[in-house]
Amino acid sequence: MREISVIGIGQTKVDEHWDKAIKDLAFEAVTAALQDAGRETAEALFVGNMLSPMVSGQNHLATLVADWLGIRGAEAVKIEAACGSGAAAFRAGLMAVASGEVDSALVVGLEKMTDKAGHDVTAALATAADADYEVEQGVSFVGLNALVMRRYMYEYGWKHADFAPFSINAHANAVHNPFARLREPITLEQFEKSSMIATPVNLLDASPIGDGAAAALIVPAGRARTDGKSVRVAGSGAATDSIAIHDRREPLFLSAAYQSARQAYAQAGVSVADIDVFELHDAFSIMSALSLEACGFAERGQGPRLGLDNEIQVTGRVPICTRGGLKARGHPVGATGMYQIVEVVQQLRGECGPTQVDGAKIGMAQNIGGSGATIITHILKRE
Amino acid sequence: MREISVIGIGQTKVDEHWDKAIKDLAFEAVTAALQDAGRETAEALFVGNMLSPMVSGQNHLATLVADWLGIRGAEAVKIEAACGSGAAAFRAGLMAVASGEVDSALVVGLEKMTDKAGHDVTAALATAADADYEVEQGVSFVGLNALVMRRYMYEYGWKHADFAPFSINAHANAVHNPFARLREPITLEQFEKSSMIATPVNLLDASPIGDGAAAALIVPAGRARTDGKSVRVAGSGAATDSIAIHDRREPLFLSAAYQSARQAYAQAGVSVADIDVFELHDAFSIMSALSLEACGFAERGQGPRLGLDNEIQVTGRVPICTRGGLKARGHPVGATGMYQIVEVVQQLRGECGPTQVDGAKIGMAQNIGGSGATIITHILKRE
Repeated sequence: MREISVIGIGQTKVDEHWDKAIKDLAFEAVTAALQDAGRETAEALFVGNMLSPMVSGQNHLATLVADWLGIRGAEAVKIEAACGSGAAAFRAGLMAVASGEVDSALVVGLEKMTDKAGHDVTAALATAADADYEVEQGVSFVGLNALVMRRYMYEYGWKHADFAPFSINAHANAVHNPFARLREPITLEQFEKSSMIATPVNLLDASPIGDGAAAALIVPAGRARTDGKSVRVAGSGAATDSIAIHDRREPLFLSAAYQSARQAYAQAGVSVADIDVFELHDAFSIMSALSLEACGFAERGQGPRLGLDNEIQVTGRVPICTRGGLKARGHPVGATGMYQIVEVVQQLRGECGPTQVDGAKIGMAQNIGGSGATIITHILKRE
Repeated sequence: MREISVIGIGQTKVDEHWDKAIKDLAFEAVTAALQDAGRETAEALFVGNMLSPMVSGQNHLATLVADWLGIRGAEAVKIEAACGSGAAAFRAGLMAVASGEVDSALVVGLEKMTDKAGHDVTAALATAADADYEVEQGVSFVGLNALVMRRYMYEYGWKHADFAPFSINAHANAVHNPFARLREPITLEQFEKSSMIATPVNLLDASPIGDGAAAALIVPAGRARTDGKSVRVAGSGAATDSIAIHDRREPLFLSAAYQSARQAYAQAGVSVADIDVFELHDAFSIMSALSLEACGFAERGQGPRLGLDNEIQVTGRVPICTRGGLKARGHPVGATGMYQIVEVVQQLRGECGPTQVDGAKIGMAQNIGGSGATIITHILKRE
């Protein structure tokens, strides 16, 4: 397999972009990535997106975006794996370049959610769950995560406030990210007093949706930039689990995270101790704990300990959500996986200012579709 | 790039499968493909599908299908390129195996359309067009094809009956395909008298929708079967054009078909004269003419001549739609591209009975998303 480098990155602010169509968001992020790389075009376009058919009445999105970008003629395809669509598109792009079929690929994670009112989006998000076995029972996506969190607290004896550090850390970091949606710090008191959504998940356990696009330009490593801004893709892994949580052997263990991280570690030739920064999928605070455990950063049931011990901060042992994470940068679902890739590249380039992880050389991004059903893990290295 | 072989194929009948969920259709086709190959599983699953979010309320389809198939844990991802989703998934699978990331992949084209009433499906299909520039004007997908056909007839002086051979040939061939939806022959008189849908497109110019799934198992060529049933993937090409037809330089020329066919010919080291059988995307009779022209089988504006001269029949120079094509096998949109691949494999294996193309060694499949906006062409060779 050919080695691949990321040579350009771009992103829009995660926000309610009422004045922009979905293709405008793509244009902004992709143009920024091309400018960053000093290139004008690419041979192929891979779009990660979940909700465009339901929210924007638009299928065939990748070809539409290629047209709008002015790279007419280029191969273009959309990849969908629920909230894991962004990383799935990145992996599809990697495989296209690695196979030799194309020599450059643009990957953009892209989501426009605010064109529909709240209830519609909640229903649309529930299409990531099993329509027959979960959604038909009336359970929303938040509801599913609440069931997992409640069980986790019961099994391992944590109280709700023990999850606060995950959200507090994410908000503290987002203050310094101009592309983040929620750029204000929060306190433990605010965390504990925020509105309940689905017990025990309250508003500050949950990530906000939003509109956004994040893009990267990838090429074979041999054709990368020589100015120190190229970042190597060292490892990539993808795995799945049953969509319905009740159908899993261990509902509190993300087996697909374990499996995909293991693949990525092996491919990159690194171990968990080598990871300098980890952009994980904190759609809900419980998911931070489960992800840290499945990837080997904490023992089972002990994820919250890392937060309580200040290990997840930028200066800690396992810095996570250094640009705000899903919780505060925002979670434009199909775009999120590409925001994570872009943010890891920023860390490895040393471009993160006050939230820069000192001397970061190896970064990991993990994107989740559904409540742990599709998990894709990438490891990037400074070149 | 590693050479790839198709070692197993499977399909369901295209029909109104009221008694089956979308995952049941996938199960039937994939199980048949695995049985055909004498294998039990694969490392990855690529699902081509367009309408599942809108018709079945189900995103995250690939992971759901992997779960239902019992290949839990395997990488799974959905690919969407409107009606070109099937071939797009096949190409994604090819690149995954070619890159070395996986050593076996199942690809399934999958669509369930009859769960919604007719009007809803027409609206859902229109999401393949440009929501801002085409659909907002009230034009349906049939309407767009009617505008193209009308212009073509005007420019090149053909009358409606000149397109009849495309539909008559497709129906005649479908009689012998147990998986086809419309297994009855039609006459020129029936063709001319059938109900008008959108002038000049009448019912027998148009392909019927349906539910269906078609699957293939692919592996590196070195690991293929040795019983003569493996088929080599010799060429693969993908290209796009503007989604909105009015925005194209030449609305009557499928530039993405030209471009993707040229890529596939070059990769396979063949020319148009070497193609023994061609499964093209006859969603409407006009598309048969345009596809034949863009791929080099006919001069511009002369596609219908091939039909009138009996060149498109199984015994002709360019046999097309040998298993019924979209017109009579049926067009379960996101599945169609994989039906074409399966049918070309059947031809190259010599399994087509009365519609077998004598001595077929090289076959081509071309799948189209939108009105020519995404076109993916594959060339397969007998091993």
